[in-house]
Amino acid sequence: MPMTKAERAEFQLKAKTYLDRAGIVLTPEEADHIEIADLGLGEFTQTGLALVVYVNTDRVCAKELILLPGQTCPQHMHPAVQGKPGKEETFRCRWGTVYLYVSGEPTPNPKAKPPTGREQTYNVWHEIILRPGDQYTLMPETWHWFQGGPEGAIVSEFSTRSTDEHDVFVDKEISRAPEFTE
Amino acid sequence: MPMTKAERAEFQLKAKTYLDRAGIVLTPEEADHIEIADLGLGEFTQTGLALVVYVNTDRVCAKELILLPGQTCPQHMHPAVQGKPGKEETFRCRWGTVYLYVSGEPTPNPKAKPPTGREQTYNVWHEIILRPGDQYTLMPETWHWFQGGPEGAIVSEFSTRSTDEHDVFVDKEISRAPEFTE
Repeated sequence: MPMTKAERAEFQLKAKTYLDRAGIVLTPEEADHIEIADLGLGEFTQTGLALVVYVNTDRVCAKELILLPGQTCPQHMHPAVQGKPGKEETFRCRWGTVYLYVSGEPTPNPKAKPPTGREQTYNVWHEIILRPGDQYTLMPETWHWFQGGPEGAIVSEFSTRSTDEHDVFVDKEISRAPEFTE
Repeated sequence: MPMTKAERAEFQLKAKTYLDRAGIVLTPEEADHIEIADLGLGEFTQTGLALVVYVNTDRVCAKELILLPGQTCPQHMHPAVQGKPGKEETFRCRWGTVYLYVSGEPTPNPKAKPPTGREQTYNVWHEIILRPGDQYTLMPETWHWFQGGPEGAIVSEFSTRSTDEHDVFVDKEISRAPEFTE
Protein backbone atom coordinates (compact mmCIF):
# COMPACT_ATOMS: atom_id res chain seq x y z
CA MET A 1 0.00 0.00 0.00
CA PRO A 2 1.43 3.42 -0.90
CA MET A 3 2.50 5.60 2.00
CA THR A 4 0.23 8.50 2.91
CA LYS A 5 1.49 12.07 2.81
CA ALA A 6 1.07 12.24 6.60
CA GLU A 7 3.27 9.18 7.03
CA ARG A 8 5.82 10.70 4.71
CA ALA A 9 5.86 13.92 6.76
CA GLU A 10 6.42 11.88 9.92
CA PHE A 11 9.40 10.05 8.39
CA GLN A 12 10.80 13.34 7.14
CA LEU A 13 10.74 14.69 10.70
CA LYS A 14 12.38 11.52 11.95
CA ALA A 15 15.17 11.72 9.35
CA LYS A 16 15.71 15.34 10.39
CA THR A 17 16.26 14.28 14.03
CA TYR A 18 19.00 11.89 12.86
CA LEU A 19 20.69 14.66 10.88
CA ASP A 20 20.42 17.00 13.86
CA ARG A 21 22.09 14.45 16.09
CA ALA A 22 24.95 14.16 13.60
CA GLY A 23 25.32 17.96 13.44
CA ILE A 24 24.39 18.05 9.76
CA VAL A 25 22.64 21.33 8.96
CA LEU A 26 19.93 21.64 6.30
CA THR A 27 18.16 24.75 5.08
CA PRO A 28 14.44 24.83 6.03
CA GLU A 29 13.67 24.30 2.32
CA GLU A 30 15.85 21.16 2.26
CA ALA A 31 14.28 19.84 5.47
CA ASP A 32 10.83 20.20 3.91
CA HIS A 33 11.93 18.13 0.91
CA ILE A 34 13.75 15.20 2.48
CA GLU A 35 13.04 12.33 0.10
CA ILE A 36 11.28 9.34 1.64
CA ALA A 37 11.91 6.42 -0.71
CA ASP A 38 9.93 3.28 -0.01
CA LEU A 39 10.80 1.90 -3.44
CA GLY A 40 7.19 1.08 -4.12
CA LEU A 41 6.98 -1.73 -1.56
CA GLY A 42 5.00 0.18 1.09
CA GLU A 43 7.16 -1.27 3.87
CA PHE A 44 9.33 1.77 4.53
CA THR A 45 10.71 0.85 7.95
CA GLN A 46 11.85 -2.46 6.46
CA THR A 47 12.88 -1.51 2.90
CA GLY A 48 13.76 2.05 1.97
CA LEU A 49 15.75 5.06 3.04
CA ALA A 50 15.54 8.82 3.42
CA LEU A 51 17.70 11.04 1.22
CA VAL A 52 18.85 14.61 0.94
CA VAL A 53 20.23 15.35 -2.52
CA TYR A 54 22.62 18.28 -2.29
CA VAL A 55 23.64 18.39 -5.92
CA ASN A 56 23.14 16.26 -9.03
CA THR A 57 24.61 17.75 -12.18
CA ASP A 58 25.72 15.99 -15.36
CA ARG A 59 28.99 15.07 -13.67
CA VAL A 60 28.69 15.18 -9.87
CA CYS A 61 26.20 14.07 -7.24
CA ALA A 62 26.30 14.33 -3.45
CA LYS A 63 23.67 13.15 -0.98
CA GLU A 64 23.08 12.26 2.63
CA LEU A 65 21.40 8.89 3.15
CA ILE A 66 19.51 8.31 6.39
CA LEU A 67 18.75 4.74 7.48
CA LEU A 68 16.52 3.73 10.38
CA PRO A 69 17.72 0.87 12.61
CA GLY A 70 17.60 -2.30 10.54
CA GLN A 71 16.24 -0.50 7.48
CA THR A 72 17.56 -1.85 4.18
CA CYS A 73 18.40 -0.27 0.86
CA PRO A 74 17.85 -3.33 -1.31
CA GLN A 75 20.29 -5.01 -3.67
CA HIS A 76 20.94 -3.10 -6.87
CA MET A 77 23.63 -1.93 -9.26
CA HIS A 78 24.28 0.98 -11.57
CA PRO A 79 24.68 -0.16 -15.19
CA ALA A 80 26.30 1.66 -18.08
CA VAL A 81 23.71 3.73 -19.95
CA GLN A 82 23.99 4.69 -23.62
CA GLY A 83 27.70 3.91 -23.67
CA LYS A 84 28.43 5.99 -20.57
CA PRO A 85 29.93 4.13 -17.58
CA GLY A 86 27.52 3.52 -14.71
CA LYS A 87 27.40 5.46 -11.48
CA GLU A 88 30.45 5.28 -9.22
CA GLU A 89 29.79 5.97 -5.57
CA THR A 90 31.66 6.41 -2.31
CA PHE A 91 29.77 5.83 0.94
CA ARG A 92 31.17 7.58 3.98
CA CYS A 93 29.56 6.83 7.33
CA ARG A 94 28.96 9.99 9.36
CA TRP A 95 26.91 8.64 12.24
CA GLY A 96 25.75 5.25 13.51
CA THR A 97 26.71 2.01 11.77
CA VAL A 98 25.98 0.72 8.30
CA TYR A 99 26.35 -2.86 7.09
CA LEU A 100 27.27 -2.85 3.42
CA TYR A 101 27.24 -5.97 1.22
CA VAL A 102 28.96 -6.26 -2.14
CA SER A 103 29.95 -8.98 -4.61
CA GLY A 104 32.88 -11.09 -3.45
CA GLU A 105 33.80 -13.70 -0.86
CA PRO A 106 30.70 -14.18 1.35
CA THR A 107 31.27 -13.19 4.97
CA PRO A 108 30.36 -15.93 7.47
CA ASN A 109 27.75 -14.85 10.05
CA PRO A 110 26.90 -11.49 8.49
CA LYS A 111 25.44 -8.82 10.80
CA ALA A 112 22.45 -7.94 8.62
CA LYS A 113 19.36 -9.96 7.77
CA PRO A 114 17.49 -9.24 4.53
CA PRO A 115 13.93 -7.94 4.90
CA THR A 116 11.46 -10.69 5.78
CA GLY A 117 9.83 -12.31 2.78
CA ARG A 118 12.37 -10.86 0.35
CA GLU A 119 15.42 -12.97 1.21
CA GLN A 120 15.56 -14.43 -2.30
CA THR A 121 16.40 -11.01 -3.73
CA TYR A 122 19.65 -10.75 -1.75
CA ASN A 123 22.61 -12.73 -3.04
CA VAL A 124 25.82 -10.75 -2.43
CA TRP A 125 27.27 -11.28 1.01
CA HIS A 126 30.73 -9.76 1.21
CA GLU A 127 30.33 -7.59 4.32
CA ILE A 128 31.87 -4.18 4.97
CA ILE A 129 31.02 -2.51 8.27
CA LEU A 130 31.20 1.26 8.20
CA ARG A 131 31.32 3.34 11.36
CA PRO A 132 31.78 7.14 11.52
CA GLY A 133 34.84 8.10 9.47
CA ASP A 134 34.86 4.83 7.50
CA GLN A 135 34.16 4.81 3.80
CA TYR A 136 34.02 2.50 0.80
CA THR A 137 34.07 3.19 -2.94
CA LEU A 138 31.89 1.15 -5.32
CA MET A 139 32.83 1.06 -8.96
CA PRO A 140 29.98 0.87 -11.52
CA GLU A 141 28.10 -2.40 -11.99
CA THR A 142 28.95 -3.68 -8.52
CA TRP A 143 25.92 -5.35 -6.94
CA HIS A 144 25.36 -3.95 -3.45
CA TRP A 145 22.88 -3.44 -0.65
CA PHE A 146 23.12 -1.95 2.81
CA GLN A 147 21.33 -1.84 6.13
CA GLY A 148 21.30 0.53 9.10
CA GLY A 149 22.82 -0.84 12.32
CA PRO A 150 21.11 -0.89 15.74
CA GLU A 151 20.97 2.94 15.99
CA GLY A 152 20.46 3.57 12.28
CA ALA A 153 23.02 5.45 10.20
CA ILE A 154 23.83 8.56 8.26
CA VAL A 155 25.96 8.02 5.17
CA SER A 156 27.33 10.66 2.82
CA GLU A 157 27.34 9.54 -0.79
CA PHE A 158 29.78 11.14 -3.22
CA SER A 159 29.19 10.00 -6.79
CA THR A 160 28.88 10.64 -10.46
CA ARG A 161 25.46 11.71 -11.76
CA SER A 162 22.57 9.90 -10.15
CA THR A 163 19.89 8.55 -12.52
CA ASP A 164 17.66 6.49 -10.25
CA GLU A 165 15.51 5.35 -13.17
CA HIS A 166 18.45 3.32 -14.53
CA ASP A 167 19.24 1.47 -11.30
CA VAL A 168 18.78 -2.27 -11.62
CA PHE A 169 17.22 -4.00 -8.60
CA VAL A 170 17.16 -7.76 -8.07
CA ASP A 171 13.66 -7.49 -6.60
CA LYS A 172 11.36 -6.92 -9.56
CA GLU A 173 8.57 -5.57 -7.34
CA ILE A 174 10.70 -2.51 -6.64
CA SER A 175 10.03 0.78 -8.37
CA ARG A 176 12.24 3.78 -7.76
CA ALA A 177 9.59 6.39 -8.60
CA PRO A 178 7.78 7.56 -5.45
CA GLU A 179 4.03 7.24 -5.01
CA PHE A 180 2.00 8.75 -2.18
CA THR A 181 -1.69 8.81 -1.36
CA GLU A 182 -3.58 11.66 0.32
CA MET B 1 59.82 30.90 4.24
CA PRO B 2 58.56 27.31 4.08
CA MET B 3 56.55 26.09 7.05
CA THR B 4 58.32 23.74 9.48
CA LYS B 5 56.96 20.27 10.15
CA ALA B 6 56.23 21.34 13.74
CA GLU B 7 54.15 24.26 12.50
CA ARG B 8 52.34 21.96 10.13
CA ALA B 9 51.53 19.55 12.99
CA GLU B 10 50.15 22.46 15.00
CA PHE B 11 47.87 23.57 12.17
CA GLN B 12 46.72 19.97 11.66
CA LEU B 13 45.66 19.83 15.31
CA LYS B 14 43.89 23.16 14.94
CA ALA B 15 42.01 22.00 11.84
CA LYS B 16 40.99 18.89 13.77
CA THR B 17 39.43 21.01 16.54
CA TYR B 18 37.29 22.76 13.92
CA LEU B 19 36.13 19.42 12.51
CA ASP B 20 35.38 18.18 16.03
CA ARG B 21 33.25 21.22 16.72
CA ALA B 22 31.29 20.55 13.53
CA GLY B 23 30.78 16.89 14.49
CA ILE B 24 32.77 15.66 11.46
CA VAL B 25 34.52 12.41 12.32
CA LEU B 26 37.88 11.40 10.83
CA THR B 27 39.76 8.16 11.23
CA PRO B 28 43.02 8.57 13.22
CA GLU B 29 44.89 7.95 9.94
CA GLU B 30 43.00 10.78 8.23
CA ALA B 31 43.58 13.11 11.18
CA ASP B 32 47.33 12.48 10.91
CA HIS B 33 47.29 13.41 7.24
CA ILE B 34 45.22 16.59 7.17
CA GLU B 35 46.75 18.59 4.33
CA ILE B 36 48.10 21.99 5.30
CA ALA B 37 48.35 24.00 2.07
CA ASP B 38 50.20 27.30 2.30
CA LEU B 39 50.45 27.46 -1.49
CA GLY B 40 54.15 28.21 -1.29
CA LEU B 41 53.71 31.68 0.18
CA GLY B 42 54.73 30.82 3.76
CA GLU B 43 51.90 32.96 5.17
CA PHE B 44 49.48 30.19 6.08
CA THR B 45 47.19 32.07 8.47
CA GLN B 46 46.71 34.67 5.74
CA THR B 47 46.75 32.60 2.53
CA GLY B 48 46.02 28.90 2.54
CA LEU B 49 43.66 26.28 3.88
CA ALA B 50 43.55 22.84 5.47
CA LEU B 51 42.03 19.94 3.54
CA VAL B 52 40.85 16.41 4.08
CA VAL B 53 40.52 14.55 0.79
CA TYR B 54 38.01 11.72 1.23
CA VAL B 55 38.13 10.42 -2.32
CA ASN B 56 39.63 11.48 -5.64
CA THR B 57 39.09 9.00 -8.45
CA ASP B 58 39.08 9.61 -12.20
CA ARG B 59 35.49 10.85 -11.95
CA VAL B 60 34.64 11.96 -8.41
CA CYS B 61 36.29 13.96 -5.65
CA ALA B 62 35.05 14.91 -2.17
CA LYS B 63 36.88 16.95 0.45
CA GLU B 64 36.42 18.96 3.59
CA LEU B 65 38.04 22.40 3.49
CA ILE B 66 38.90 24.08 6.79
CA LEU B 67 39.49 27.84 6.87
CA LEU B 68 40.79 29.82 9.82
CA PRO B 69 39.12 33.17 10.58
CA GLY B 70 40.01 35.54 7.74
CA GLN B 71 42.13 32.92 5.97
CA THR B 72 41.93 33.10 2.17
CA CYS B 73 42.03 30.49 -0.57
CA PRO B 74 43.36 32.75 -3.33
CA GLN B 75 41.82 33.47 -6.70
CA HIS B 76 42.05 30.62 -9.18
CA MET B 77 40.14 28.62 -11.78
CA HIS B 78 40.06 25.09 -13.12
CA PRO B 79 40.80 24.99 -16.85
CA ALA B 80 40.03 22.28 -19.37
CA VAL B 81 42.96 19.85 -19.61
CA GLN B 82 43.73 17.76 -22.69
CA GLY B 83 40.26 18.29 -24.11
CA LYS B 84 38.53 17.28 -20.86
CA PRO B 85 36.30 19.91 -19.22
CA GLY B 86 37.77 21.54 -16.10
CA LYS B 87 36.84 20.73 -12.54
CA GLU B 88 33.27 21.46 -11.48
CA GLU B 89 32.77 21.99 -7.77
CA THR B 90 29.99 22.52 -5.26
CA PHE B 91 30.86 24.19 -1.96
CA ARG B 92 28.54 23.42 0.94
CA CYS B 93 29.13 25.28 4.18
CA ARG B 94 28.93 22.95 7.21
CA TRP B 95 30.09 25.25 9.99
CA GLY B 96 30.99 28.94 10.39
CA THR B 97 30.77 31.39 7.50
CA VAL B 98 32.56 31.55 4.18
CA TYR B 99 32.73 34.53 1.86
CA LEU B 100 32.95 33.31 -1.72
CA TYR B 101 33.79 35.57 -4.68
CA VAL B 102 33.17 34.72 -8.31
CA SER B 103 33.08 36.46 -11.69
CA GLY B 104 30.03 38.68 -12.18
CA GLU B 105 28.52 41.92 -10.96
CA PRO B 106 30.85 43.22 -8.19
CA THR B 107 29.16 43.40 -4.78
CA PRO B 108 29.42 46.84 -3.12
CA ASN B 109 31.11 46.75 0.32
CA PRO B 110 32.20 43.11 0.24
CA LYS B 111 32.78 41.42 3.58
CA ALA B 112 36.24 40.02 2.79
CA LYS B 113 39.53 41.83 2.30
CA PRO B 114 42.24 40.20 0.16
CA PRO B 115 45.46 39.28 1.96
CA THR B 116 47.68 42.31 2.63
CA GLY B 117 50.24 42.95 -0.09
CA ARG B 118 48.46 40.68 -2.58
CA GLU B 119 45.40 42.81 -3.38
CA GLN B 120 46.39 43.06 -7.05
CA THR B 121 45.83 39.33 -7.52
CA TYR B 122 42.12 39.54 -6.62
CA ASN B 123 39.78 40.89 -9.29
CA VAL B 124 36.45 39.02 -9.06
CA TRP B 125 34.06 40.54 -6.55
CA HIS B 126 30.64 38.99 -6.92
CA GLU B 127 29.99 37.95 -3.32
CA ILE B 128 28.16 34.85 -2.12
CA ILE B 129 27.90 34.34 1.63
CA LEU B 130 27.58 30.73 2.72
CA ARG B 131 26.41 29.76 6.19
CA PRO B 132 25.73 26.21 7.41
CA GLY B 133 23.39 24.49 4.95
CA ASP B 134 24.11 26.98 2.14
CA GLN B 135 25.89 25.83 -0.99
CA TYR B 136 27.03 27.08 -4.39
CA THR B 137 28.06 25.24 -7.55
CA LEU B 138 30.93 26.54 -9.69
CA MET B 139 31.13 25.42 -13.29
CA PRO B 140 34.62 24.93 -14.81
CA GLU B 141 36.73 27.97 -15.70
CA THR B 142 34.92 30.23 -13.24
CA TRP B 143 37.42 32.48 -11.45
CA HIS B 144 36.85 32.29 -7.69
CA TRP B 145 38.37 32.82 -4.27
CA PHE B 146 37.03 32.47 -0.75
CA GLN B 147 37.75 33.52 2.80
CA GLY B 148 36.80 32.22 6.25
CA GLY B 149 34.44 34.47 8.25
CA PRO B 150 35.04 35.67 11.83
CA GLU B 151 34.93 32.12 13.30
CA GLY B 152 36.49 30.37 10.30
CA ALA B 153 34.58 27.82 8.28
CA ILE B 154 34.22 24.21 7.27
CA VAL B 155 33.13 23.65 3.69
CA SER B 156 32.40 20.33 2.01
CA GLU B 157 33.52 20.24 -1.60
CA PHE B 158 31.82 17.84 -4.02
CA SER B 159 33.51 17.81 -7.41
CA THR B 160 34.87 16.06 -10.43
CA ARG B 161 38.46 14.81 -10.23
CA SER B 162 40.83 17.19 -8.50
CA THR B 163 44.14 17.84 -10.26
CA ASP B 164 45.70 20.63 -8.21
CA GLU B 165 48.68 20.89 -10.55
CA HIS B 166 46.39 22.23 -13.30
CA ASP B 167 44.77 24.97 -11.22
CA VAL B 168 45.49 28.43 -12.57
CA PHE B 169 46.16 31.11 -9.93
CA VAL B 170 46.24 34.83 -10.62
CA ASP B 171 49.13 35.23 -8.15
CA LYS B 172 52.18 33.87 -9.96
CA GLU B 173 54.12 33.41 -6.69
CA ILE B 174 51.72 30.63 -5.73
CA SER B 175 52.73 27.01 -6.05
CA ARG B 176 50.29 24.24 -5.20
CA ALA B 177 52.92 21.62 -4.32
CA PRO B 178 53.64 21.62 -0.60
CA GLU B 179 57.11 22.22 0.81
CA PHE B 180 58.12 21.80 4.44
CA THR B 181 61.41 22.16 6.31
CA GLU B 182 62.55 20.09 9.27
